[in-house]
Amino acid sequence: MAVHGGELRLQTRGDGEIVDLTEGVARVAAAGDIDRGIVCVSAVGSTVAVTTMEYEAGGIQDLTEVLERLVPREGAYAHNRLNHDTNAHAHIRAALIGPSITVPLVSGRLVLGTWQQIVLVDFDDRPRQRTVTVQIVG
Amino acid sequence: MAVHGGELRLQTRGDGEIVDLTEGVARVAAAGDIDRGIVCVSAVGSTVAVTTMEYEAGGIQDLTEVLERLVPREGAYAHNRLNHDTNAHAHIRAALIGPSITVPLVSGRLVLGTWQQIVLVDFDDRPRQRTVTVQIVG
Amino acid sequence: MAVHGGELRLQTRGDGEIVDLTEGVARVAAAGDIDRGIVCVSAVGSTVAVTTMEYEAGGIQDLTEVLERLVPREGAYAHNRLNHDTNAHAHIRAALIGPSITVPLVSGRLVLGTWQQIVLVDFDDRPRQRTVTVQIVG
Repeated sequence: MAVHGGELRLQTRGDGEIVDLTEGVARVAAAGDIDRGIVCVSAVGSTVAVTTMEYEAGGIQDLTEVLERLVPREGAYAHNRLNHDTNAHAHIRAALIGPSITVPLVSGRLVLGTWQQIVLVDFDDRPRQRTVTVQIVG
Repeated sequence: MAVHGGELRLQTRGDGEIVDLTEGVARVAAAGDIDRGIVCVSAVGSTVAVTTMEYEAGGIQDLTEVLERLVPREGAYAHNRLNHDTNAHAHIRAALIGPSITVPLVSGRLVLGTWQQIVLVDFDDRPRQRTVTVQIVG
Repeated sequence: MAVHGGELRLQTRGDGEIVDLTEGVARVAAAGDIDRGIVCVSAVGSTVAVTTMEYEAGGIQDLTEVLERLVPREGAYAHNRLNHDTNAHAHIRAALIGPSITVPLVSGRLVLGTWQQIVLVDFDDRPRQRTVTVQIVG
């Protein structure tokens, strides 16, 4: 039994940019030499989320548009009013989707579908440096 | 300390069918003889999600109707247009809810409420064979 | 390698009350003397959710209002009709957000942003006693 971890650091444009983390997570897992276990992929921050999706142009556009419809950037948000801020929509979207996922590790490989990628969605309304922690126990 | 895992394989009708996984997950946990730990329940694929709910007819109908209202099957989705596909709504819903959950294992039992079941929701628009990975570390 | 766990017990007002769990989770983690691992934070029940957010008055109000708009308390819900109940909206919201999150533990500390708190959201429409299980493997 062992614990192995690593950090992914990335620069995003914000504004809902979706970044494929799969290769980075797999690289951390491969370095750990753990055969079976659970992988936690967790983003630091309250305006960023982690989930899985098919990472292709259509799906990226659809998810972006649906979130803009459900939780629009413009609105009479209390967070913006009270804090003289502009990213209330980013906070709400991130809380709804959630900051982390877990992925099983079996035979040293992430158990994902062929068209299922681990993604970070950066909802903040400006470019950000982001840190994603990958932690494996097994 | 140990790792124990198993796979649940199931046939769904798709179209948002909700399947109660609780007994299957508990069966994998019982076979593992781990007393305390974390259980990861993760579905393979980008049109399927895992969450918990009270598994009863009313709640099943409500969740289905709310998701159809928030992310309708019909719509001008880029995924469908670019890939000559019909299941863009399934991809979006799955990304919003997420592919996996973790459940604590205490005294060999899943820590869930009496009316709280682990469910798979298959949003794809056709019947699917699904694989759910149950991975326990403890 | 070790497993360490604890329970947080809290009284909520229900009605979407959002409770900051971060200090309670950190206290359980500190008692466990585990340096590196994965922390599962999981709420018991089907009308309660766990996520992360910046815990401040504006964000709390915004998340509450957005959820009331997306999944209103009032509505022709089957759960309410079939079970002579009044909390169908709570069940739907909880299933969408999810019952648990995982947080990496590194150098004995929860890896979270400065303005990122672990929160419980109690969607039930009455005061509730809630139990949150914190389970750490590492």
